[in-house]
Amino acid sequence: MQIAIVVYDRLTALDAIGPYEVLSRLPDVELIFVGAAKGEQRTDTGRLGLIADRTLAEVPAPDVVVVPGGPGQTALMEDAELLAWLRAADATSAWTTSVCTGSLLLAAAGLLDGRRATTHWLAVDELARFGATPVRERVVEDGKYVTAAGVSAGIDMALTLAGRIAGDEVAQLIQLGIEYDPRPPYGAGSPATASAQAVETLRSLSRFS
Amino acid sequence: MQIAIVVYDRLTALDAIGPYEVLSRLPDVELIFVGAAKGEQRTDTGRLGLIADRTLAEVPAPDVVVVPGGPGQTALMEDAELLAWLRAADATSAWTTSVCTGSLLLAAAGLLDGRRATTHWLAVDELARFGATPVRERVVEDGKYVTAAGVSAGIDMALTLAGRIAGDEVAQLIQLGIEYDPRPPYGAGSPATASAQAVETLRSLSRFS
Repeated sequence: MQIAIVVYDRLTALDAIGPYEVLSRLPDVELIFVGAAKGEQRTDTGRLGLIADRTLAEVPAPDVVVVPGGPGQTALMEDAELLAWLRAADATSAWTTSVCTGSLLLAAAGLLDGRRATTHWLAVDELARFGATPVRERVVEDGKYVTAAGVSAGIDMALTLAGRIAGDEVAQLIQLGIEYDPRPPYGAGSPATASAQAVETLRSLSRFS
Repeated sequence: MQIAIVVYDRLTALDAIGPYEVLSRLPDVELIFVGAAKGEQRTDTGRLGLIADRTLAEVPAPDVVVVPGGPGQTALMEDAELLAWLRAADATSAWTTSVCTGSLLLAAAGLLDGRRATTHWLAVDELARFGATPVRERVVEDGKYVTAAGVSAGIDMALTLAGRIAGDEVAQLIQLGIEYDPRPPYGAGSPATASAQAVETLRSLSRFS
């Protein structure tokens, strides 16, 4: 099974690395970081370089597509090459997935029309604008389309997907291997539980506001 | 404030990227990925390249040291250059931290002698062998030494550290920004909650068994 994780300039690293850390541990998979060009892509903070090992064109028909989000997503919403690749890859994929604002790219490619999907909490209205039916859940499955909420939700999405692909026992082995027994020191991880001031601060800084 | 995350051949990506995603969002920080040499380091699966932007020698006195773990840690336990760098950096650091088996490298450098610390659940006995006092908690603080359990625990460690560095409100903003409201689809993330068979399977595959 071939898994392609798309990387691009100014992606959010954890969007990609959460799913990578889970899915790369599945048995009999070939996981590949793909980009418009081979080589280094800088993440949104400018502080990290990730390598795209293959071009999109070199990996035309992966079984699993993973599209991370991040500020760089905005510049790709009309990127003909990426959108064409997403449509073509989706035509034969077993699973088409995203983390955070990666779902906006799937939506821009027309793949989420009328489908239930999610994204970062700050981008939910944007997802509706591109034809999807936004759902405020951590992981949303609609047939082969599996979308995750913001950034860290890619870990939960990938464990869910690992269970679908390889069964619950394998997914649980992976969870134990990465010791994913989260204990956040605060309860501020959702707009429903964070302070109103924190929600307002991030809204005011959002590229979607 | 300067933050150095050490990368090396065959590290586990999420060990480094979890803390990166949190700590890079602190105000007024310069976060740098450092390695023995500049350039690409392959992660433990061989499927991802991360870039070290600077050499260890170029970043001799960071305020925060973050040492991730992974299979490549074993080969570094007697690496004179790295251990000397860790000792020197620790002499002036405000915080010396690790994720997963990164704490074994801190211990090998003599920095955890008699200190409370943690590591991946499979490596707890190893940590004791190198002079630390192992504690089976997700995040362990002993003065300026902050160590995390396996892989994904680096996110919890970094949020804890962010609170210490910049206060609870800033840490909570970061948590909300990365939507860290974990919902693991299984409860298998700890040897205390996973099946006995899963624990045994991973023990049998461990490089520490």
